[in-house]
Amino acid sequence: MSVTRIDGRTPNQLRPITFTRSWLNNAEGSVLVEFGNTRVLCVASFTPGVPRWLHGSGKGWVTSEYAMLPRATHTRSDRESVKGKLGGRTQEISRLVGRSLRSIVDMQALGENTIVIDCDVLQADGGTRTAAITGAYVALVDAIDWAKGKGLVAPHKTILTQSVSAVSVGIINGLPMLDLCYEEDVTAETDMNIVCTGDGNFVEVQGTAEGKPFDRTLLNGLLDLGTAGTAQLAALQAAALGK
Amino acid sequence: MSVTRIDGRTPNQLRPITFTRSWLNNAEGSVLVEFGNTRVLCVASFTPGVPRWLHGSGKGWVTSEYAMLPRATHTRSDRESVKGKLGGRTQEISRLVGRSLRSIVDMQALGENTIVIDCDVLQADGGTRTAAITGAYVALVDAIDWAKGKGLVAPHKTILTQSVSAVSVGIINGLPMLDLCYEEDVTAETDMNIVCTGDGNFVEVQGTAEGKPFDRTLLNGLLDLGTAGTAQLAALQAAALGK
Amino acid sequence: MSVTRIDGRTPNQLRPITFTRSWLNNAEGSVLVEFGNTRVLCVASFTPGVPRWLHGSGKGWVTSEYAMLPRATHTRSDRESVKGKLGGRTQEISRLVGRSLRSIVDMQALGENTIVIDCDVLQADGGTRTAAITGAYVALVDAIDWAKGKGLVAPHKTILTQSVSAVSVGIINGLPMLDLCYEEDVTAETDMNIVCTGDGNFVEVQGTAEGKPFDRTLLNGLLDLGTAGTAQLAALQAAALGK
Amino acid sequence: MSVTRIDGRTPNQLRPITFTRSWLNNAEGSVLVEFGNTRVLCVASFTPGVPRWLHGSGKGWVTSEYAMLPRATHTRSDRESVKGKLGGRTQEISRLVGRSLRSIVDMQALGENTIVIDCDVLQADGGTRTAAITGAYVALVDAIDWAKGKGLVAPHKTILTQSVSAVSVGIINGLPMLDLCYEEDVTAETDMNIVCTGDGNFVEVQGTAEGKPFDRTLLNGLLDLGTAGTAQLAALQAAALGK
Amino acid sequence: MSVTRIDGRTPNQLRPITFTRSWLNNAEGSVLVEFGNTRVLCVASFTPGVPRWLHGSGKGWVTSEYAMLPRATHTRSDRESVKGKLGGRTQEISRLVGRSLRSIVDMQALGENTIVIDCDVLQADGGTRTAAITGAYVALVDAIDWAKGKGLVAPHKTILTQSVSAVSVGIINGLPMLDLCYEEDVTAETDMNIVCTGDGNFVEVQGTAEGKPFDRTLLNGLLDLGTAGTAQLAALQAAALGK
Amino acid sequence: MSVTRIDGRTPNQLRPITFTRSWLNNAEGSVLVEFGNTRVLCVASFTPGVPRWLHGSGKGWVTSEYAMLPRATHTRSDRESVKGKLGGRTQEISRLVGRSLRSIVDMQALGENTIVIDCDVLQADGGTRTAAITGAYVALVDAIDWAKGKGLVAPHKTILTQSVSAVSVGIINGLPMLDLCYEEDVTAETDMNIVCTGDGNFVEVQGTAEGKPFDRTLLNGLLDLGTAGTAQLAALQAAALGK
Repeated sequence: MSVTRIDGRTPNQLRPITFTRSWLNNAEGSVLVEFGNTRVLCVASFTPGVPRWLHGSGKGWVTSEYAMLPRATHTRSDRESVKGKLGGRTQEISRLVGRSLRSIVDMQALGENTIVIDCDVLQADGGTRTAAITGAYVALVDAIDWAKGKGLVAPHKTILTQSVSAVSVGIINGLPMLDLCYEEDVTAETDMNIVCTGDGNFVEVQGTAEGKPFDRTLLNGLLDLGTAGTAQLAALQAAALGK
Repeated sequence: MSVTRIDGRTPNQLRPITFTRSWLNNAEGSVLVEFGNTRVLCVASFTPGVPRWLHGSGKGWVTSEYAMLPRATHTRSDRESVKGKLGGRTQEISRLVGRSLRSIVDMQALGENTIVIDCDVLQADGGTRTAAITGAYVALVDAIDWAKGKGLVAPHKTILTQSVSAVSVGIINGLPMLDLCYEEDVTAETDMNIVCTGDGNFVEVQGTAEGKPFDRTLLNGLLDLGTAGTAQLAALQAAALGK
Repeated sequence: MSVTRIDGRTPNQLRPITFTRSWLNNAEGSVLVEFGNTRVLCVASFTPGVPRWLHGSGKGWVTSEYAMLPRATHTRSDRESVKGKLGGRTQEISRLVGRSLRSIVDMQALGENTIVIDCDVLQADGGTRTAAITGAYVALVDAIDWAKGKGLVAPHKTILTQSVSAVSVGIINGLPMLDLCYEEDVTAETDMNIVCTGDGNFVEVQGTAEGKPFDRTLLNGLLDLGTAGTAQLAALQAAALGK
Repeated sequence: MSVTRIDGRTPNQLRPITFTRSWLNNAEGSVLVEFGNTRVLCVASFTPGVPRWLHGSGKGWVTSEYAMLPRATHTRSDRESVKGKLGGRTQEISRLVGRSLRSIVDMQALGENTIVIDCDVLQADGGTRTAAITGAYVALVDAIDWAKGKGLVAPHKTILTQSVSAVSVGIINGLPMLDLCYEEDVTAETDMNIVCTGDGNFVEVQGTAEGKPFDRTLLNGLLDLGTAGTAQLAALQAAALGK
Repeated sequence: MSVTRIDGRTPNQLRPITFTRSWLNNAEGSVLVEFGNTRVLCVASFTPGVPRWLHGSGKGWVTSEYAMLPRATHTRSDRESVKGKLGGRTQEISRLVGRSLRSIVDMQALGENTIVIDCDVLQADGGTRTAAITGAYVALVDAIDWAKGKGLVAPHKTILTQSVSAVSVGIINGLPMLDLCYEEDVTAETDMNIVCTGDGNFVEVQGTAEGKPFDRTLLNGLLDLGTAGTAQLAALQAAALGK
Repeated sequence: MSVTRIDGRTPNQLRPITFTRSWLNNAEGSVLVEFGNTRVLCVASFTPGVPRWLHGSGKGWVTSEYAMLPRATHTRSDRESVKGKLGGRTQEISRLVGRSLRSIVDMQALGENTIVIDCDVLQADGGTRTAAITGAYVALVDAIDWAKGKGLVAPHKTILTQSVSAVSVGIINGLPMLDLCYEEDVTAETDMNIVCTGDGNFVEVQGTAEGKPFDRTLLNGLLDLGTAGTAQLAALQAAALGK
């Protein structure tokens, strides 16, 4: 294909992806993930015990909170802590990240332990929620390994049934493109986020027509591109984890 | 197919759908929509003028707020007004309804007018967000006709480029099912909401693996079922509007 | 008297009153009450157990929350859940409805059970708080009968010592009028809400001079009209309950 | 009558009432009012200009805010500023005080000026809202005289059409009593607040059966007692103002 | 020195200081403290028991809340309870007062009891936080004596290891001045608050260059003046307490 | 001195200090500052225009917001955005950082422009507020140079009258120590933060006795240590800026 993207990539090419593990000294798992200029700090905090509604269930809990620093974006946004309320977008993405991670966790194997994964966007250039999910998985693996090392969960247990990664895809000038940067994202006619397990099944599919509604053919094109992208990300996660 | 659903429907059968227009005396458009026992009051309020960021743009604005009465559900929930904050689910659905409606509105044709569509769930039995979108469209049509009647928008203008409707689909015991009721919804392995225009294109596709991740074949099955369901709903909307 | 009211009623005539019981499928008591165009959904939720400060007291608790849908009124109001705080009017009426209902409940007989009564105004045309009290009583009776049927309270116990109903009265052009509709309410010089038991005693009397202060003679006229009105409402409640 | 009250008063006797004017150095009107041990600081702030919705109307605005210091009562209450929301009781009383004062103000004569009257309860021993209204009137007179002295309103204008005062009455052991102190208030079967103008008309009448509902005879007894009490208070206000 | 201050004081002279103990009837300790026109009501509430994180520690807890009435200042400020959030200044001063008092309390000797000290500024003319600390100490002594009298703490225990007082100092026209009033405060180049124990040691030193940064010589001058001022205040506290 | 500190430093030795400029792509000034393991991202956002109360004054505005990521500390803290309110500590530090920066800005020279400096603690190991001030100065210089480059302020104007830096000092086992790490900070008897200009004058001095009150000699020792430390920091800032 001879389409030229803003940053010179081909339509099905990811941006440069990096995972910097143990970015913080004290957290059980901490990863600075970068999708091009998008930079998200994913920190997994492991704590024995579960919320009240799970007491005595033998099951664990995994949840996530997503946020952006005020100047992660081109112009400064007001802090939600100062405004005194969480925006709808923040809550929506926090819920998405949490669900995505829970889909691969065997809560029975985790036992009555809680893992909270904070995803703070330090710099935003499109695809922050998919970078967050992809980095959060790596932090989650590290936190579980830490807990196994401490004897807080049994070392032989398989707590994560799969890996999970996510990528955005979109239609620009009628063509599906992988892993949109901000400048592409604002012009996309349709924007879709795809969350897949390492073995290629879907955890979440969220497509939105920003401009005109899209037909089944374009949807299929987006799904093809997204599953290929998440497969690449799964390989990069495995490499980062040395597995 | 010989599968028996909880309420005796076939897998691809909608629940009984009704639209009661002009349910309120004063609103520009008001529809009580029922999908079986799910009952949502959709009210469109038309006001000349737009939010500040659209002043002078010549364009209109359409937005939506979704909420549930405290005892719409089996057990009473606390009011968000009493808690002093909106939950993530409420904001997420409000945003979805608003986006869905905006996808079919020609804001230039609407001119500098604002339509707010309140979707209040009086009784919840699964599929409240899809019923809300489906009923909101009918209320929107009525509000625009009212505005044309009052001369607030030019009668000859085509403000709505399409109709829009929505339905939930899900996988139960490995099989795709249309328009889940609450009891089905809690047991579904995957839950998907599909929003389509009257001419069969996608506005939103949101699928979530509640249990195990789903493969492309199941996804295709859900998409087939959903597009067939929204086509039926489009016909029912047209009938209710006498068009 | 030859005074003609806006809607053709005589000064001491109620609007058409209807009670639709079991308006919801799942609530222990639910009544759609209508005073003319005023339409309030009153839903009683019965739960075993009491707030902490009543633990071990052997006594029950009854409380109420009143709210309005955003487009219940002629022009749309912002949601209190979106604003993040309850308005003074909302809290004031919630407290009034709760007090009125508690005045006729034998908390010892109720035992350690809680009944919350939600009064949501679907359409407002004056007298929403008095309609709420009047409908809430009927929902309360149904919820208690449900609890007796379930064996949650002893069937032979008299939990409600009386019935209770409420009506608004006001002075328009110097003359006392019963059950004001919205258009009358805004022009009334004095507005009074009267809450009475079925045997004709006062539970609440709240009169406010909106325009010029009123003398004892007018006050007496309002009290006469109000007690006659609540007596009629008590009869209508009994009829709706088939008692 | 030979009834002995807790503090030795006769049933129709007020507690010792004092008004200390100019209790603050800078406020346009400030009065420390005492009804026995109840001590309320009433401060009137006069500002040229009105809220936006009155711009250009030629009319002024009077409003009030009531609050209690945390240890005004026998046991300490949490601050509403710390809790981050106003309680229903606080808002209800603020609204009552504001309405009562507005009932005697000629807003046209006041012109486009705003008076806010803060009533802060420093010590509470029953009847705080009625003491607040009674003291606020005196502060209001002082603020208006100040404004006349400054030429902010024309000196010859009659801005206050009447005086206004308020008192609580209640039924204790079946007998009406005037101006209840806290210890009486908690045992009262019925509690009523009466707000009257100096010429003896009613501005507000709010009666609540705390225990058993009350009949018309008792209501009449309370009204007699209340109007006699407010007449005495009107005389005390006039004396304090040197009029 | 021949410098003339606004109110005729010498640079190292305090304003007239008064302590009115037992200003409220019911509080365990209550002091109206005045530093010239600054008037703060300091009320100590003693309660058996401690916050959860101290249960079983054998230690007590002392905390403080500072606030201003809306018209304590020259122009009216909005209430923080109405705004729904505490301002930064309020929280900062509350924390300072609490820390200052805790510095002289032997929590082990206090035992599992809590003392909350509310400092409400009734009139503000500069130095409200230092007046609050100085008055709060006196209220604290009274509350502890009350608790000893009630047998809630052992009478022979020394709970307060020292007295504590505070004063503001500042640089005006290049000269250090003691105990600034509001008019001086707004023109000061540097503003410093000094909290000292009765035996002359520092508990808090907080200096801020409002205008140009200050050198070590000026800082030393401020510290000299402040320690002399707090020594005088310690003597006045002792006199007020009859010790 | 032969005292050994936890991390092997001498009492008057700073931790390793680094400034990474332009840490973000889009901000006008962005510096990742590190004091040992303490890591703060300081981002200066430059915007033409000023808050309403400065319109037409010809003066600019500089302000700051300080915050911590939830897992910057050893155990995870709840987000203030989720709690819906800013803590007192957060507001206190934000105010301190803002005041410190404003002390060296010539607002007239800045003209009607606003600079907001966000200081987000990514990792906390003591001294976060002093690191924030020290890093914020560097970001501020870069933002002003950017604005000069864009012609938004005149290149020849001296907007910053001085540099500013800050350091913590404390008393441990009776000895003054410079630049405490977290482990030292929790055991310090006295904790002091000193903010100085590059030419050695004080902007802020804030000392608090965490344990026993401190005398003048110890205070002098802390001031000596702090001024020496800020002098070193000023040199490091200049080096980082290549000046």
